[in-house]
Amino acid sequence: MTIVYADNNATTKVAPEVVAEMTTFLTEKWGNPSSMHQLGGDVEKAIESAREKVAACLGAAQPTEIIFTSGGTESDNTAIRSALASRKGRRKIITSRVEHPAVLNLCKNLEREGYQVRYLPVDNHGLLSLDDLREAMDEDVALVTLMAANNETGVLFPVEQAGEIAHEYGALFHTDAVQAMGKVPVDLSFGHVDLLSVSGHKIHGPKGIGALYVRRGCRFRPFIVGGHQERGRRGGTENVPGIAAMGRAAELALAHMADEQIRVKKLRDTLEEGLLKIPLSRVNGKTEKRLPGTSNISFKNVEGEALLLMLDQKGICASSGSACTSGTLEPSHVLRAMGVPFTYAHGSLRFSLGRYNTEDDVTKILKELPPIVTRLRELSPFSG
Amino acid sequence: MTIVYADNNATTKVAPEVVAEMTTFLTEKWGNPSSMHQLGGDVEKAIESAREKVAACLGAAQPTEIIFTSGGTESDNTAIRSALASRKGRRKIITSRVEHPAVLNLCKNLEREGYQVRYLPVDNHGLLSLDDLREAMDEDVALVTLMAANNETGVLFPVEQAGEIAHEYGALFHTDAVQAMGKVPVDLSFGHVDLLSVSGHKIHGPKGIGALYVRRGCRFRPFIVGGHQERGRRGGTENVPGIAAMGRAAELALAHMADEQIRVKKLRDTLEEGLLKIPLSRVNGKTEKRLPGTSNISFKNVEGEALLLMLDQKGICASSGSACTSGTLEPSHVLRAMGVPFTYAHGSLRFSLGRYNTEDDVTKILKELPPIVTRLRELSPFSG
Repeated sequence: MTIVYADNNATTKVAPEVVAEMTTFLTEKWGNPSSMHQLGGDVEKAIESAREKVAACLGAAQPTEIIFTSGGTESDNTAIRSALASRKGRRKIITSRVEHPAVLNLCKNLEREGYQVRYLPVDNHGLLSLDDLREAMDEDVALVTLMAANNETGVLFPVEQAGEIAHEYGALFHTDAVQAMGKVPVDLSFGHVDLLSVSGHKIHGPKGIGALYVRRGCRFRPFIVGGHQERGRRGGTENVPGIAAMGRAAELALAHMADEQIRVKKLRDTLEEGLLKIPLSRVNGKTEKRLPGTSNISFKNVEGEALLLMLDQKGICASSGSACTSGTLEPSHVLRAMGVPFTYAHGSLRFSLGRYNTEDDVTKILKELPPIVTRLRELSPFSG
Repeated sequence: MTIVYADNNATTKVAPEVVAEMTTFLTEKWGNPSSMHQLGGDVEKAIESAREKVAACLGAAQPTEIIFTSGGTESDNTAIRSALASRKGRRKIITSRVEHPAVLNLCKNLEREGYQVRYLPVDNHGLLSLDDLREAMDEDVALVTLMAANNETGVLFPVEQAGEIAHEYGALFHTDAVQAMGKVPVDLSFGHVDLLSVSGHKIHGPKGIGALYVRRGCRFRPFIVGGHQERGRRGGTENVPGIAAMGRAAELALAHMADEQIRVKKLRDTLEEGLLKIPLSRVNGKTEKRLPGTSNISFKNVEGEALLLMLDQKGICASSGSACTSGTLEPSHVLRAMGVPFTYAHGSLRFSLGRYNTEDDVTKILKELPPIVTRLRELSPFSG
């Protein structure tokens, strides 16, 4: 059975070009970049080349603004802890109710450490109000951290403008851009984003590698302390195969961004139009300000988990929300924040399309899903 | 030119078996273990299998005592921060003067945060005195952190006994066992080690993966906060290829430990005996309590960096100390702590042999190095 993989916001297939790049640094160039001998020198160059590629994909002014990490979560932790250290004395953090667990759970810990955290709401479309942000700001805010694109709905936040507001009050601005990278342009040239987190495995790179952008001039405090690596900003022997792979993945992502905006968006729109023909269905976060490949769609009076399992039997991989919060039976915190009615929220699916999806994939989903919804509704105690 | 790689304490060639294991999780099984569909389930099992293998290699009682991290440095940071959080109120840390930068630099930061850090000395052989440790202990010590094996000299510390002393005073005990794993038995069964750090790329695994052992019952506070991964103890999508690779590397390391103890040790001893025939040479840390493959040897009145470069031209890869402190021209903090005379310390080389070294490698080093030392001494302003 051919698998239709429509869960690209959870993780992506590693691009063959990326696997090839990575393999070189596993089989031939396995030296330690800090070593003085020939096995070290080559890999040092590869790291700097990868740094340039990630900087280019993010529109960073300089490669030195990029620090390699073990992934998006480490980047988020590093950014937030660094920002608080460099705004010592200020005790407030502003974030949103729909952030990724990497940010939300850290913020909950920070509340226990004495910080006051304000979780901004979103509207029914998942959109953030800059007025709400401005109203929450004062000179005691150390950090504003808002995601660039939501992992569950794909809804985009106006991060440049939010950063500008943060700066007016002397606060730092961080954005989790894990879902945005390679899908929508991230423009760092206005200088209102101080810190930005990205991850390799969301852009057809491998798991275990990520990066943190730190705007030149922004004070930085290392999170993982150790050797002199990454200009003293992140200790530990560099994950050379991962870094080289992330560089290649970033290069490919930049080249494919137009494809995301046009072809992938069209696939998503076709899928969405087709699925909305199912009675009692709704798209959560149906706005133009959205990632091109993401659709979060709810079917009233069915269980999302049941939908997923039956789709899986047909070879279709999707998600009921975030992979990072799966395993819990609570409805998604994102959909709750958006006010999605309970009877819909429980029957939510996230389809996230990407580089390797085709029209055939969409056709197959549109063929298989409607009868599954019908069948589950017949079994549901809520319907009828 | 065939390369003689004698720098296995810096990093190791990734074993072909490990590359094969890793490749499976890059090309076929690239799913997110948290996903509800078939691409997720397989990789979840692979993670648990790898956890069992690492636990077995370390002699841990249970696989759940193993948390995967991005490497030794993250493990050290996690262990130390967690220990301090769970002994809140206690303000002292005891470590040694010869630790890895991951521990030493973090300790320096902790001094700035208000902790009082005691750096225990070592003797001329690099050995630690348990009497010194006992004398330094009191009820205000939160943590004792001592490495299992020194990266520069290979000298072993009596970690089980040190842990026992720490526990008498209610302190936690951590050991950086990055260099010990797979080379000397690590016996966790006495229960005096609470936290233990290891790294994949020192045991013929890839860079970017490591593990932290947390003794069952030892309170733990996560360092990287995010999703539910690793039973809530380390957020972030699991580095599945790295974890699978680390599991395989641990399995191989356990199987090869006898080879280290006998064959590799014999190679090291042959090398050392041959090099000591060079006039004005000395082995630093020449004790039975030493890693089987490591030899740190000094040649009076020559520059270690010059030796390294000339060896490199002959295809021999060694180190002047730790890769993590290279690039600085200061003599090694380890050799200084051991009281190695200045005229010797500057002319130090570390040879670290391992699984893939042969008698031919040793023969080649013994052929090439003596004339290099002679030549450099002829050029030296200190000699004659």
